Amino acid sequence: MIQKPRGTQDLYLNNSKEWNIVEEKFRKILNLFNYGEIVTPMFESKELFVRSVGDTSDIVSKEMYEFTDRKGREYVLRPEGTAPTVRAVIENKLYIQENLPFKAFYIGPIFRYERPQAGRYRQFNQLGVETFGIDSISHDVELVSLGQSFLNELKINNDVVIEINYLITGDERKMYEVELKKYLSSFTDLCSDCKTRINKNVLRTLDCKIDASKFINAPKMFEFASQENKDRLGETFNQLKQLGIKTQINFNLVRGLDYYTGLVFEFKNAKTDQAIISGGSYNNLVEELGGPSLPASGFAIGIERIMLILNEQGIKVGNNDQLDLFIIPLTEEAQFITNKLLMEARKANLKVDTNWNIKNLKTGFKSAERSNAKKIVVIGDNSMKSDIYAIKDQKSGKVKEVKFNEIVKYLKEERRNEKNT
Amino acid sequence: MIQKPRGTQDLYLNNSKEWNIVEEKFRKILNLFNYGEIVTPMFESKELFVRSVGDTSDIVSKEMYEFTDRKGREYVLRPEGTAPTVRAVIENKLYIQENLPFKAFYIGPIFRYERPQAGRYRQFNQLGVETFGIDSISHDVELVSLGQSFLNELKINNDVVIEINYLITGDERKMYEVELKKYLSSFTDLCSDCKTRINKNVLRTLDCKIDASKFINAPKMFEFASQENKDRLGETFNQLKQLGIKTQINFNLVRGLDYYTGLVFEFKNAKTDQAIISGGSYNNLVEELGGPSLPASGFAIGIERIMLILNEQGIKVGNNDQLDLFIIPLTEEAQFITNKLLMEARKANLKVDTNWNIKNLKTGFKSAERSNAKKIVVIGDNSMKSDIYAIKDQKSGKVKEVKFNEIVKYLKEERRNEKNT
Repeated sequence: MIQKPRGTQDLYLNNSKEWNIVEEKFRKILNLFNYGEIVTPMFESKELFVRSVGDTSDIVSKEMYEFTDRKGREYVLRPEGTAPTVRAVIENKLYIQENLPFKAFYIGPIFRYERPQAGRYRQFNQLGVETFGIDSISHDVELVSLGQSFLNELKINNDVVIEINYLITGDERKMYEVELKKYLSSFTDLCSDCKTRINKNVLRTLDCKIDASKFINAPKMFEFASQENKDRLGETFNQLKQLGIKTQINFNLVRGLDYYTGLVFEFKNAKTDQAIISGGSYNNLVEELGGPSLPASGFAIGIERIMLILNEQGIKVGNNDQLDLFIIPLTEEAQFITNKLLMEARKANLKVDTNWNIKNLKTGFKSAERSNAKKIVVIGDNSMKSDIYAIKDQKSGKVKEVKFNEIVKYLKEERRNEKNT
Repeated sequence: MIQKPRGTQDLYLNNSKEWNIVEEKFRKILNLFNYGEIVTPMFESKELFVRSVGDTSDIVSKEMYEFTDRKGREYVLRPEGTAPTVRAVIENKLYIQENLPFKAFYIGPIFRYERPQAGRYRQFNQLGVETFGIDSISHDVELVSLGQSFLNELKINNDVVIEINYLITGDERKMYEVELKKYLSSFTDLCSDCKTRINKNVLRTLDCKIDASKFINAPKMFEFASQENKDRLGETFNQLKQLGIKTQINFNLVRGLDYYTGLVFEFKNAKTDQAIISGGSYNNLVEELGGPSLPASGFAIGIERIMLILNEQGIKVGNNDQLDLFIIPLTEEAQFITNKLLMEARKANLKVDTNWNIKNLKTGFKSAERSNAKKIVVIGDNSMKSDIYAIKDQKSGKVKEVKFNEIVKYLKEERRNEKNT
């Protein structure tokens, strides 16, 4: 038997329904915040991620699905969503003055060749937002509040902790890196990745899945920050607090990608310590990838992790979307009449169905039961001859007799009655 | 500058909005028809398509993006949606009696390494439906009516032609293939593909992009059909006609994939002759891929081709989704107050926005104009001191003075008033 690729998943039945509702809620919130959607290809030039995420990152060095096309071009399945968005902004010149600030969201699969675990897939899904052309405390505050609004919309109100930090840049960062290297040189038992990182990108040692816990006494980046940057982090924290959004400052939060500058933040599942929303500013990335100098910031949400937390907290996002009518046709002619009724009812936005395999009343009622419809009707020789169709309400057990041409009208009335009660 | 991969596209601004509306309309119709969504990975085992689509098909022999993972497993970006759905149905045992008939739809990218042209991309997008466990005229009729309902929902009412045909199977098919080979052997100028196809899968010569037009006098498959199959095609045609759906029988319609059996159909853009919806029955595929014997049928819709036809016919699917309010903050304190107002308004499902780069009234009004908001308000020292906020309606020019705490209430009232007029 042919199986799905290792580390991937199929979604169907209730799973895909809940998934879609989460996406719809995301779209709703993003529309209220005046963001438009951006859709980029599933694969991109390998070079895009080498230049943005960085070739010493785990993602680029170990986790990409790489392939060449028939002309030998080197592509990878996209391992994150920010670099493709930046590439699209530059290539399509979305940075022109009339578009700024350009605020975009994306929804879709991301691919990383990691060891599959509970809730971790090789093809997983992200909801992401990116903004271009703004760099201010008010914007940082709004961005964090956008993440919070999404969780509120999903009714995830407990067990989420928001951590924030401010990454320094320029000379301050260089001085800090010198001190951090000095501190790390005293360790003789670093993992091979960290040994490489010390020279290539020392900050990333603080993110190391193996060694990070050893570095509790490492010099703190924030001590090297200018007064302006210190004030900015404090002010962001205060404004969020006044707006009812509690955050914690975590000076060791550096995020696993090369391109972050300024504010970084993570919304964490307090029970599992997993990040469910994470992002920050990346003010140099647009220019580094060949575009104009343009501040930018954003965050990504792991849909699988959102599904896990909804499940943990027993939150049901599904709506109870029952069939208005299930039809039981007993003859070939009844099947034709059924198709006619299905067409007319669906044209009137009613949700109706049948099962063409029904051979008799017994299998018909069984199918009707399984369909969980609000109402059922049997169509056979008697009803067709007399033009009297007995529509039974499955909840109350009541039966209403209706002419064929009035069934749709009757179902619409019943829907209106439901809404009003 | 790094560019998107050749033959792929970025969607943004109005394009992505229209795209999403088309997808939402598809979801709406599929829900009315009681279909659930199925989501499968972007890549699958290469073997899946070799065994289903067939290794003599253009898709498998020339058009797949192939790659191996770090363990040497052979994968391809999915070049069509039916085989992955069948794979998922088998692997997840979705064919159990309680689920049947199992009716699923999918939405997503498909990948084929073809020569890029207007409206033809290497990553393109399909809306697809598949049903398992039903094989009857009534179902065939319902399936075609589903395609028609989707076009109706999009208001595509002109210039679409529906062609249907019935592919024979078993001994009838074998006899037909013998006759077709005989006929083709008289041609000395066949393309290299057709020369291969004659021996491997002779039916596909009728689909050939190069040679097909030469074969007008080829023996017709339908002449070899049993009376039962002839009757079935005729009855399908008649029932559709009685339901108001006009079709044309095209005996040369064989579809470009190996797995079809029984009814096949195409909805064609009459102006360009491009298929926009195409599908049929594939009653042997589930068993061929290792599952139980289970009739199946479905169709796929090319979203890019739908967008083209909407464009050709001047149909606008977009809704007029304006901002309820654009805020012009003039000071830092005003920015903080603005974030507060944004949060409260969005919590009340109002669409509101600002531009944090606004420095003065002039740039503020420019931003407000560009935002195309229904209403605007300026927040500065005066309004904050007096607690009087002048909300200007951009259409009527009228100004309403409101206290800060009553702005959201006022905007909600205004929205209700709009709806009632």
